[in-house]
Amino acid sequence: MIDINAVIESLDWSREPKGLYEPIGYALSSGGKRLRPQLALLACRLFGGDETKALPVALALEVFHNFTLLHDDVMDRAAVRRGRPTVHVQWNYNTAILSGDQMLIEAYRLLSEVEANQLPNLLCWFNEMATGICEGQQYDVDFEQRDDVTIEEYIQMIRLKTSVLLANALRSGAYIAGADPQQQQCLYDWGIHVGLAFQIQDDMLDVYGDPNTFGKAIGGDICCNKKTYLLLTALQRAQGEDKKALMKWLGQLASQDKIQAVTALYDKLGVRAVAEQAIRSHSEQAMALMANLPHNEAADQLNQLVKKLQNRKS
Amino acid sequence: MIDINAVIESLDWSREPKGLYEPIGYALSSGGKRLRPQLALLACRLFGGDETKALPVALALEVFHNFTLLHDDVMDRAAVRRGRPTVHVQWNYNTAILSGDQMLIEAYRLLSEVEANQLPNLLCWFNEMATGICEGQQYDVDFEQRDDVTIEEYIQMIRLKTSVLLANALRSGAYIAGADPQQQQCLYDWGIHVGLAFQIQDDMLDVYGDPNTFGKAIGGDICCNKKTYLLLTALQRAQGEDKKALMKWLGQLASQDKIQAVTALYDKLGVRAVAEQAIRSHSEQAMALMANLPHNEAADQLNQLVKKLQNRKS
Repeated sequence: MIDINAVIESLDWSREPKGLYEPIGYALSSGGKRLRPQLALLACRLFGGDETKALPVALALEVFHNFTLLHDDVMDRAAVRRGRPTVHVQWNYNTAILSGDQMLIEAYRLLSEVEANQLPNLLCWFNEMATGICEGQQYDVDFEQRDDVTIEEYIQMIRLKTSVLLANALRSGAYIAGADPQQQQCLYDWGIHVGLAFQIQDDMLDVYGDPNTFGKAIGGDICCNKKTYLLLTALQRAQGEDKKALMKWLGQLASQDKIQAVTALYDKLGVRAVAEQAIRSHSEQAMALMANLPHNEAADQLNQLVKKLQNRKS
Repeated sequence: MIDINAVIESLDWSREPKGLYEPIGYALSSGGKRLRPQLALLACRLFGGDETKALPVALALEVFHNFTLLHDDVMDRAAVRRGRPTVHVQWNYNTAILSGDQMLIEAYRLLSEVEANQLPNLLCWFNEMATGICEGQQYDVDFEQRDDVTIEEYIQMIRLKTSVLLANALRSGAYIAGADPQQQQCLYDWGIHVGLAFQIQDDMLDVYGDPNTFGKAIGGDICCNKKTYLLLTALQRAQGEDKKALMKWLGQLASQDKIQAVTALYDKLGVRAVAEQAIRSHSEQAMALMANLPHNEAADQLNQLVKKLQNRKS
């Protein structure tokens, strides 16, 4: 089995000009779950493929993912990523923009190392995925300015922003291993549901996570009125006095009182149960899809990976 | 013959989310010389190829070029591009970053429409080119902080920042038409020299251009001590009192006096003649390379295009 962390660490960013490549090495060395490349490699092994053949895609996806984090941090003016200063803090904004651009190009360079006959499809899917992620990011930005976001729109946004990357990692790995199109699609859909469950759980952790293990302050989304699955559900369910109270708190600046009050409203409105039900539903749909796929060691590892995600504390 | 302007205008950016795609349409509709796609199509015709087959590369290169302008304008905080507000002025910085990222992805999407058997080489070259341009941009930034930039380093920087895009447009078009590797290389080298001549002339226009036709204020590079071919040549040639005077002016803020004084020093030191000689030298090397290539209507048009560049006023 490929040690994906070791491979990522072995990528050489000591090239000139240092001002371009050092930030890329920095961004890639900050750890993370390496979920996306793992999914690509496991999907390849699931269908009996040689996982070294999926390595270019796996690396391209990880570099691409970290590119999106880098530019997202610029756009959010975020100061910290995985416990370290973000690139624009460690260097400056222009460096973060340019090194981010180069990371996106590096992702394509890594991808181009797949077998030539598989390149057209893999590149086409990669482009679709990358476009979906930019579109999802734009919808996320648009939602901040809107008061009428529906839960369906939210699901479509997180599908683009989170799920299509996981799904594409899986489909690409399966395709490289020679899985038939139906199986590729099945694994793709599995990734979509896993991604949705993952993202809704992300929204849950922000409110109901353990402050000792969450890694950042609880209630960050509540403070900035982020339109999460929880808030949109609350807005949908609240009536009368509850609605008034919720709207009043949304008009307030960030505070511990606001976090407590909004969380209390979530509890009263049964928002947590709705979100847990949504996570369960997507997990079950994923499990049902998995039944159609090979049962082997790689399948077990995929399921373990999902369980770890479901039980994560941060 | 393909009307490249018409094809670029026909690209549809009316997709959702508007916040992502409208800025792309805006950036691409501001005109420009369309030099890069023209070079790709002409190179294809030079070798008797069907230029519609080079269209995906031609469009990819134009979209890529405009992506670099968009992000460069962000990094330079530039307010105007081709007589119109830049994207970050018309919208905001985050939009310019995200829509720029999507433009880079669109460039790869357009590129992916070449014939499958030609995709691996074309993608590999595109990646090399894109990397070169980011590296060139970083060197340009690095040079601002350095006092020991040599003319050789400057030439290497503009080679990366300007020439490799032209050269790759030409090589890609020739490759698609089936030109042999030697001919591809010859046309690539031709593009390198044309690009260097173009960039040095750019430096010249900033100082010696006609204020009525140049389109922006004369002396912008002098005002901000930009390390152009002219300034680096002056620094290399100046001795004694001239050197002292030049260094004194470099320590001053922007002013008409500074522009006049530095221009006078350039004249005294024969900088203009050196730059003109460099332009002539690269133009002659380009012409010598052209002698090895087919003589036909496309060759005439390539030469006309270069002449138009040499005689441009802005």
